[in-house]
Amino acid sequence: MKIAIVGVGHVGAALAYSLLNLETASELMLVGRNQGRLQGETLDLRHASSFFDDPPLITYGRVEDCRNADIIVLTLAVPQIQLDRNAMAADNAALFRQVVPLLAEQNPAAVLIVATNPVEALTQYTIELSGFPPSRVMGAGTIIDSCRFRLSLSEHLSVHPDDVRAYVLGEHGDSQFLWQSGASVGGVTLDPADIPQSMIEAARSSGTDVFRLKGHTCYAISEALQLIIRSIAGDRLQTMPVSTQVNLGDEFPPLCLALPCIVGRTGVTRRLQPKFSEQEYQQWLTCGQSVARTLEAIRETSPEPVEN
Amino acid sequence: MKIAIVGVGHVGAALAYSLLNLETASELMLVGRNQGRLQGETLDLRHASSFFDDPPLITYGRVEDCRNADIIVLTLAVPQIQLDRNAMAADNAALFRQVVPLLAEQNPAAVLIVATNPVEALTQYTIELSGFPPSRVMGAGTIIDSCRFRLSLSEHLSVHPDDVRAYVLGEHGDSQFLWQSGASVGGVTLDPADIPQSMIEAARSSGTDVFRLKGHTCYAISEALQLIIRSIAGDRLQTMPVSTQVNLGDEFPPLCLALPCIVGRTGVTRRLQPKFSEQEYQQWLTCGQSVARTLEAIRETSPEPVEN
Amino acid sequence: MKIAIVGVGHVGAALAYSLLNLETASELMLVGRNQGRLQGETLDLRHASSFFDDPPLITYGRVEDCRNADIIVLTLAVPQIQLDRNAMAADNAALFRQVVPLLAEQNPAAVLIVATNPVEALTQYTIELSGFPPSRVMGAGTIIDSCRFRLSLSEHLSVHPDDVRAYVLGEHGDSQFLWQSGASVGGVTLDPADIPQSMIEAARSSGTDVFRLKGHTCYAISEALQLIIRSIAGDRLQTMPVSTQVNLGDEFPPLCLALPCIVGRTGVTRRLQPKFSEQEYQQWLTCGQSVARTLEAIRETSPEPVEN
Amino acid sequence: MKIAIVGVGHVGAALAYSLLNLETASELMLVGRNQGRLQGETLDLRHASSFFDDPPLITYGRVEDCRNADIIVLTLAVPQIQLDRNAMAADNAALFRQVVPLLAEQNPAAVLIVATNPVEALTQYTIELSGFPPSRVMGAGTIIDSCRFRLSLSEHLSVHPDDVRAYVLGEHGDSQFLWQSGASVGGVTLDPADIPQSMIEAARSSGTDVFRLKGHTCYAISEALQLIIRSIAGDRLQTMPVSTQVNLGDEFPPLCLALPCIVGRTGVTRRLQPKFSEQEYQQWLTCGQSVARTLEAIRETSPEPVEN
Repeated sequence: MKIAIVGVGHVGAALAYSLLNLETASELMLVGRNQGRLQGETLDLRHASSFFDDPPLITYGRVEDCRNADIIVLTLAVPQIQLDRNAMAADNAALFRQVVPLLAEQNPAAVLIVATNPVEALTQYTIELSGFPPSRVMGAGTIIDSCRFRLSLSEHLSVHPDDVRAYVLGEHGDSQFLWQSGASVGGVTLDPADIPQSMIEAARSSGTDVFRLKGHTCYAISEALQLIIRSIAGDRLQTMPVSTQVNLGDEFPPLCLALPCIVGRTGVTRRLQPKFSEQEYQQWLTCGQSVARTLEAIRETSPEPVEN
Repeated sequence: MKIAIVGVGHVGAALAYSLLNLETASELMLVGRNQGRLQGETLDLRHASSFFDDPPLITYGRVEDCRNADIIVLTLAVPQIQLDRNAMAADNAALFRQVVPLLAEQNPAAVLIVATNPVEALTQYTIELSGFPPSRVMGAGTIIDSCRFRLSLSEHLSVHPDDVRAYVLGEHGDSQFLWQSGASVGGVTLDPADIPQSMIEAARSSGTDVFRLKGHTCYAISEALQLIIRSIAGDRLQTMPVSTQVNLGDEFPPLCLALPCIVGRTGVTRRLQPKFSEQEYQQWLTCGQSVARTLEAIRETSPEPVEN
Repeated sequence: MKIAIVGVGHVGAALAYSLLNLETASELMLVGRNQGRLQGETLDLRHASSFFDDPPLITYGRVEDCRNADIIVLTLAVPQIQLDRNAMAADNAALFRQVVPLLAEQNPAAVLIVATNPVEALTQYTIELSGFPPSRVMGAGTIIDSCRFRLSLSEHLSVHPDDVRAYVLGEHGDSQFLWQSGASVGGVTLDPADIPQSMIEAARSSGTDVFRLKGHTCYAISEALQLIIRSIAGDRLQTMPVSTQVNLGDEFPPLCLALPCIVGRTGVTRRLQPKFSEQEYQQWLTCGQSVARTLEAIRETSPEPVEN
Repeated sequence: MKIAIVGVGHVGAALAYSLLNLETASELMLVGRNQGRLQGETLDLRHASSFFDDPPLITYGRVEDCRNADIIVLTLAVPQIQLDRNAMAADNAALFRQVVPLLAEQNPAAVLIVATNPVEALTQYTIELSGFPPSRVMGAGTIIDSCRFRLSLSEHLSVHPDDVRAYVLGEHGDSQFLWQSGASVGGVTLDPADIPQSMIEAARSSGTDVFRLKGHTCYAISEALQLIIRSIAGDRLQTMPVSTQVNLGDEFPPLCLALPCIVGRTGVTRRLQPKFSEQEYQQWLTCGQSVARTLEAIRETSPEPVEN
């Protein structure tokens, strides 16, 4: 099991550090443009790995060296300087145009995980750029939003976060919504009255809060990516709200939204079919419209037609 | 954090072995009547503990030495020779009469966990014998039955067991039932049609199957007890279907049934209130009647009135 | 990675239980004669495995089903009724004659680990019965004796057991000896005066003590076997005193003794060459004589010449 | 168990992230001057903590809030812009003069761990500023240098790093030296011929290499700090080469050097007494001179006499 992390900024480095105890991985490769920086991270992580019983070998390389990777995580991004996750859409898409077709050519069998924002749009774009079946490309989705929300609710209700089953769905962005009718604690459906509206607002804004306060986010997203990676590497078939291609009807182009999916060795093995309330369904469509607009904006800036 | 295991047969020994990596515990004490056997298990476990980074100290002692234990697990039982978990009710109750009042006198502040069958009846009996508030006495309940069922369903649906939220409730015995209307996978309510009836039967009988095949069960029950212990020791507030005192209405005496509860440092911090279907509610009452009968049988054999 | 445990008594079952968290193994197969018992252990362990994130699949089978196992652990033994580990030599050897040639025929590429006593003699016997290169057959050796000794010394010196580097070598039996000139704490050579003679005696007898007190030993030996298995499965190349074939000079037939070896994916990758003091060298030869005598006794009872 | 990290730059943040799975800690407090940045890190880490079973509570505060911390890690430093670890000695010492007396006043019972460079000089300075007994103040020392060296040697010899017992001692700086006569693999003393001189040079320079390549180091030092913290928190009594106060004879003032020490709940419980060769003893004194010079330089810049 070889895992490649393409783009080693705050998120890629934190992710690599947290994967040192992944005994099922034999190699962890850092991939990027700045070879000096990469070499530095690799050395630091390799020194750190000597404290573990059975760490993966840490290596670094270029996109071409992802040839035999089983899982490739895309964390490459231009520096984020604005709060709006869509603001860098065109610039990040340009990076993806440089990297993804080459990756797909070199390694047509890998599972791809997209961490870069706007994540739903870029997951769809990666499906198109790679020509991969949609089941083998997924984004970090709203795992992190769901976890932030669960944490607040778990503190509010004095229950372990793992027993609060509540998903934030749709878009890792402003149009995201709490799937309230599907939320439960220990199997008991949550009364909407138990969920303060302020908590929903807070969950939506908490990523932005972190960005505003420390200039980036890295640890929570690193954990979200780990969850996906471990479920793939161990074929665990765990359920998590990743960005995955959905069909919203004829008015919508193919696009990705965050939806609870079962994730295993081959990628997304199944998409769950939540029973939305009428209001939730409208929120779901609103997310689709938001992602569709971002995709359009990305395509307009695309210098040449993408043909795969 | 000191944990005492009273009764070191197959279950107590397997549990002790599995707790060697519980870093939050400073001492693990084995308690029983056969001091030679105890000393042997203690030595074997202490040798094994040298392979761990931060194991608890393994000790052994008598009931009196539980004085400063934070958690006391009751696994003492007469040898089980029949399949029916109720068959040894009177004999096991007699053991509890010898031990529990003495424990309660020595250590009025501990949290008690009952592992001995029939577990719902003996949990209620332990509440009475100890005079402890019901929140500080809980039984292993149907954690193990729920997990067996989840495992089957997870294989049937190709989903990780942790994402199948389905509880078997009521009694760790023949009257147990699947709480079907509360079962979900990744937040999506399960269609009863997705649950083969044979699977429910199999879950009910699988404990008996193990007993029939190997003469006892130890590993799954050891994991169930661990789940409880870790949630108490770490004040995790995880939700699990333990045996807990419930109020079934005026026709019923106080008794314990298996119900999803939130478990933390002080014991059961909250009982969830499942919304049962009409059929499930009838099954719930049937469990209550079954446990009430067992309790009556225990009391009839009681040589003297229990006064606490 | 598939691991087979041949012989599921106290040791085999404890070992299987402790391997449920070995994420690098995809399958753990229990092998034995009593299919009912095996099926019971398998069910119990499988239920227990549902509490783990990424457990191996638990299966059971016959010797023939070890065909595709990467590691095969031999824990089969006649019931031990005497303290002397050599007493059952002939009977256990007879079991090995039934099983090992068949195993080797079915699976000529596996790494074999011998847990059965007398372990040095049976490791040598397994090399002969299998026709395997000696590097692919090793015994549990004196890992457990070394750990018992380290634990005592660590308590005596108030140091973590892992920092006491002190090996008991030679034979997992009465002739074993502490390699005193090679013992150190945190890199500082131990002054023999710091090691009470009573501690050496206690380490030698402590296995027998456990046997006398509880009728068998299982947890410490299970941990010792795990150490070997994890070093093989993860190609960790850890150093441990396993039973391995050594050359004691022309007066000795080929035989196995416990010696610090480096253990990886291919078995024993290197034997360390300790610098013994004169007295230690004599103790080493005494161990060789003891194992040679046991081997001779085994061969005398062998009904037919072993030809591989 | 409450742990405070004073100074949340690259090292402090990486350390906090890696401690999320420290189940024995109930609280992890980030302390620093930039409250916005602190709040951002705290939020990000708290979101990440929701992925763990039993994480510490993440909080942030000011120096005064360290009042009830059991362990305080000092990672505060001015930005490092030069390769020479001594270059910022005066500036970092000035930071320590602001913080340490206040810490000691608020919390006279904590164990202090110094991570800031030049670490030996600042550990000594912290002992003086705090007035604490030397056993309760230790620095990260040469744990990281030793691990880098072990890793190289383990790759060179094909042995697990944990079985290469080889310490780099003296100073976490240019005068550090390999304690060659005390190096062993699996208990067998290393032949100096087995240790390429280039490897010793490489270990000395590898920290600088990482700094040159990525502008700072964080992951290996974070693991080194963790090793110390876990040994204190769990009273593990592990041996590691921390910066500790040593007596080098009358020509030397009291100062700290990196020496293998046993570390437990109360701090350094014992200093090992290595038997140095004549050459090693000279290297040891050279380290002492180097640290003495740095200390002198620090004191000259001190605006006022330190009186404790």
